[in-house]
Amino acid sequence: MCELLGMECNVPTDIVFSFSGLATRGGKAGPHADGWGLALYEGRMARVFLEPHPAASSPLATFVREHPIKTLLAIAHVRKKTRGGTSLVNTHPFARELWGRHFVFAHNGTVKKAKSLKLGRFHPIGETDSEHAFCALLGALAHDFRDYPRSQSDLAAAVAAHAGKIGKGGTFNMLLGDGSQLFARCSTKLHYIVRQAPFKRATLADEDLTVDFAAVTTPKDRVAVIATMPLTRDETWTAGTPDTLWHFRAGRLVRTLAS
Amino acid sequence: MCELLGMECNVPTDIVFSFSGLATRGGKAGPHADGWGLALYEGRMARVFLEPHPAASSPLATFVREHPIKTLLAIAHVRKKTRGGTSLVNTHPFARELWGRHFVFAHNGTVKKAKSLKLGRFHPIGETDSEHAFCALLGALAHDFRDYPRSQSDLAAAVAAHAGKIGKGGTFNMLLGDGSQLFARCSTKLHYIVRQAPFKRATLADEDLTVDFAAVTTPKDRVAVIATMPLTRDETWTAGTPDTLWHFRAGRLVRTLAS
Repeated sequence: MCELLGMECNVPTDIVFSFSGLATRGGKAGPHADGWGLALYEGRMARVFLEPHPAASSPLATFVREHPIKTLLAIAHVRKKTRGGTSLVNTHPFARELWGRHFVFAHNGTVKKAKSLKLGRFHPIGETDSEHAFCALLGALAHDFRDYPRSQSDLAAAVAAHAGKIGKGGTFNMLLGDGSQLFARCSTKLHYIVRQAPFKRATLADEDLTVDFAAVTTPKDRVAVIATMPLTRDETWTAGTPDTLWHFRAGRLVRTLAS
Repeated sequence: MCELLGMECNVPTDIVFSFSGLATRGGKAGPHADGWGLALYEGRMARVFLEPHPAASSPLATFVREHPIKTLLAIAHVRKKTRGGTSLVNTHPFARELWGRHFVFAHNGTVKKAKSLKLGRFHPIGETDSEHAFCALLGALAHDFRDYPRSQSDLAAAVAAHAGKIGKGGTFNMLLGDGSQLFARCSTKLHYIVRQAPFKRATLADEDLTVDFAAVTTPKDRVAVIATMPLTRDETWTAGTPDTLWHFRAGRLVRTLAS
């Protein structure tokens, strides 16, 4: 199993605090020592940092923490392999271009009969059930819409429908970003929090690191953080209902759909 | 204009020496201060490091030099913008997945009427003529072959033909890698060298950095390096003939085609 982390905001925000919490679980506080990845959007494009090594002892993960890049949308993952070896090609998050923008995907769980999922134009580079499922999902969206859908709710409904089919019978907690919004499907375990004014202090669950968000934000900031397990010990996270999809945009949960 | 760098080898090799020479031209010895990028293959997948800032003063470029990753195939680029603003989406090299592998592309020059080139399934994320040309080239290959062609010479011939059409009337020096081989098209200016036994010392053209390759190689190693301008001052580089395509595999120039 793996841990997921997503962040979706209305103002560019650095993900260092939450990523630190996640990275600790990558081989130090947790068993997720088979790789880590972090995708940071800049407009429609994502920069993706990947390493098939424990995040807790990774020089690149340290570099990313020491040189924070602000972003409106980020997806991160620490991996405990269940399918596929420990290698770069099997490291989440995965990215593909569709409609002139990057889609980024990370998964927690095991997809049932993943290899029999029908693929469209996208093909896995590695061996994981996760990347196969991502390619099937994106291929289905490319089949449904010729261009990037003008209606956010149409895209959300399609993601919810296809992800629901792919996840059926297996475990398919997943994050999917497109540069403008974040979809988060809860299959068994997913939590979120929206940080907004009045901002408070928060302390990481696994590490003695506290941030006073009031000191680093403006009253208009809104930051949604989605994680497999709550990352802080002194905030109230909302647990997901199995087989639902959250749709976040501009730091706000805009809708919850059956999936 | 920009500078290109490619490396294609028969054993995993680090690109630090050549990348140092290129990075110096990114804002220190040269005018290519609008961004840099480095793609390093690991099997069929490429890791891509990009920054829309001068390479000479980039912390990430320094990190990459200090933590060398060995690879069989690398493509790097420093940018002096001619079309499109200074931003991440406009930074070379560009990457897309086709047939379950990454294709990586970097370009030097200006493509004539780039925006009127017919696109297939791949669409630009940024605004450059270069990325548009790459998407058109890859779309044409996806149209010609259903799967990754078994015959290397068939793929080389197709790349030469499509690149020749795209480059007609403009300047289209380019590098295209697929994880197993490297295609390098000379439109106006491109050079290569194959380093093999007996290895000698080499000194960077723009910096007082010398490497004794005999000390860091085995007699079986073969490393092809392709660059816009020769990177060293004490080796003999071969200049490309305009409108030809070099095909490198396992550190060897396997064929030269009209393009």
